[in-house]
Amino acid sequence: MTSRTGHQEQTVIALDAMGGDFAPEETVMGAAAVAGPSLKIILTGRRREIERCLAVAGGSVSDTARRHLEIVEAQEVIGFDEEPTKAVRGKEDSSLVVATGLVAGGRADGVVSAGNTGAALAAAMIKLRRIRGLKRPGLCAVLPTPGKPTIFIDVGANSEARPAHLLEFAGMASIFAQEVLEVANPTVGLVSIGEESVKGNELVLETHRLMAETPGLNFYGNVEGRDIVRNVVDVVVTDGFTGNVCLKLMESTSSLIVEEVKKAARRSLAARLGGLLLKKELADFKKSIDTEEFAGAYLLGVRGLVVICHGNSSRKAIASALGSAARASRQNLVGKLETRIAAMKAGSGGKAGDGGALGDKQENEVANEI
Amino acid sequence: MTSRTGHQEQTVIALDAMGGDFAPEETVMGAAAVAGPSLKIILTGRRREIERCLAVAGGSVSDTARRHLEIVEAQEVIGFDEEPTKAVRGKEDSSLVVATGLVAGGRADGVVSAGNTGAALAAAMIKLRRIRGLKRPGLCAVLPTPGKPTIFIDVGANSEARPAHLLEFAGMASIFAQEVLEVANPTVGLVSIGEESVKGNELVLETHRLMAETPGLNFYGNVEGRDIVRNVVDVVVTDGFTGNVCLKLMESTSSLIVEEVKKAARRSLAARLGGLLLKKELADFKKSIDTEEFAGAYLLGVRGLVVICHGNSSRKAIASALGSAARASRQNLVGKLETRIAAMKAGSGGKAGDGGALGDKQENEVANEI
Repeated sequence: MTSRTGHQEQTVIALDAMGGDFAPEETVMGAAAVAGPSLKIILTGRRREIERCLAVAGGSVSDTARRHLEIVEAQEVIGFDEEPTKAVRGKEDSSLVVATGLVAGGRADGVVSAGNTGAALAAAMIKLRRIRGLKRPGLCAVLPTPGKPTIFIDVGANSEARPAHLLEFAGMASIFAQEVLEVANPTVGLVSIGEESVKGNELVLETHRLMAETPGLNFYGNVEGRDIVRNVVDVVVTDGFTGNVCLKLMESTSSLIVEEVKKAARRSLAARLGGLLLKKELADFKKSIDTEEFAGAYLLGVRGLVVICHGNSSRKAIASALGSAARASRQNLVGKLETRIAAMKAGSGGKAGDGGALGDKQENEVANEI
Repeated sequence: MTSRTGHQEQTVIALDAMGGDFAPEETVMGAAAVAGPSLKIILTGRRREIERCLAVAGGSVSDTARRHLEIVEAQEVIGFDEEPTKAVRGKEDSSLVVATGLVAGGRADGVVSAGNTGAALAAAMIKLRRIRGLKRPGLCAVLPTPGKPTIFIDVGANSEARPAHLLEFAGMASIFAQEVLEVANPTVGLVSIGEESVKGNELVLETHRLMAETPGLNFYGNVEGRDIVRNVVDVVVTDGFTGNVCLKLMESTSSLIVEEVKKAARRSLAARLGGLLLKKELADFKKSIDTEEFAGAYLLGVRGLVVICHGNSSRKAIASALGSAARASRQNLVGKLETRIAAMKAGSGGKAGDGGALGDKQENEVANEI
């Protein structure tokens, strides 16, 4: 947990150093970029490989940063094509399982991984457990939409979902919006293929009905694909398949357009000069929507702080995700979720508390199998 | 069908003049923008409202254009919140059903509608029927991705889909790529949440297996959200829910970024000058990705040419869709699809032809209910 170095509180985040397409180089360098007196990073993985990365980096990693990096040995690595639950159960000595275990054991305040998302979810379910009364955790991204950020859940924790799961995601993301982003009464939109309540697939039709009759949820109604980036609502809810595809599509489309604008600014002498004059503003704008600056999605619903990154994360993305994890830890995100969810359960009263939106014995058993 | 005016072949497209958020003003003006000696537009809807739009337009619509516009009276309108099949069956005198009927009756070479997508699909299924041996039509968009266009199917014809449907979409879109875009051996990617064949929801896992074992399909494997706009494959296949959400998200994200770049170019004197110098290149680029210039999706799988537009289509989008319909008619898209699908069925031989990917009695009966 948060440790004291001198008079200062130091947050401790565990990083799955072997997880990701460009690990351990990019993970180690991402950690080195943020490690310091207020943030200690514990790198889990093969000590020799991690040390080699640090040796190669040489003077580009400061002595101060080095003092706040710790390596915890883990011999195994979980690959992207491994079956998540089997891999987590079979590889206790993997960088992911060891990192998650540091949170479970109280040595770290949170864990970051850019490895196999399914395995990171399974490790969290097994080592940290779900928040009492919840069926499924959801992966929650904060989109850098102009004006104010948009919370988007589920971006990939569950490839299949039921209406009750989407309702839980809506509730958790609303709490996130209130507690972390300080949005007073966040509006919730459900992704569909038309605004009308009769539009959508079976999952959406049923979820719409469920959300509309849930007291305490500020349900706006359906939102379409175009609305996700347009600040129509504070919280956008969808299943993990659609959410994952949308998140990656959005990131790719925006970076593609920025690339094409840059190319356009090289097409003539006048354009080149124009590009130079615009350089600062374009750089500022690019930074404002840069997904590397807003990397990492929060796994909401487990009893510990878990931030999951894309497999192709760069050192910049890893550094950003570590920063997000540290901030969420200082804001006590998980504690607040637990308290609020417990209050909601108590509020729904007696029997209803067990059978309502946030409790369902049968569902819990299914999720427990993970 | 194509009619002769003097020595010139004239293509005839029926337009559901009352369909769309901004109908009939925008539909009528879109038609007026493209009507001429080579393209006749038949506007279906309330004659008085359509005539009023043309009267208001005054001199901005040329006499030539007016000569190649025809109005066919239809008193009813199908709204966006009506149940598709019921609306089509109950409103024989609606602008949509009358327009589709013109294609069925041979008076028009194709139909364009920006109205209720589900109703346009139902009208096509009822009035035009499916191509023999096909289970489900799919809505196919041509995305203006840099370098070369990407074919994206299904963008909303089916909110639920089965593996056999996605396989059909892949086959039809491959034929479209070959016959209309002249791509020799189009690669097909299946949208999922990871490249590995074990990643995805149940629909994707099963479809992946099915596609991988289908001879004649140039199956690339899974593609992720980010790959849709990156020219990784020629044809991107997904279910109609995911496809519709993605299409709208993509359009919204790109127009948002272009707006933000414009804003950035107003932020300082230097930036303003830069913006002026870049104006031409940015305008060219904007045009190259403008969804209004690439409006309309083709409903592949019915025995007639149907192009469906977003409900919020502007006159520019309607004009573009009418142009797309006219081109596809001149290229004999539907005839080519019928011939190729019949050949594929014959090629799969005897019994297999009926029970294989392009035939399934039970499925056909389900689809026939629409």
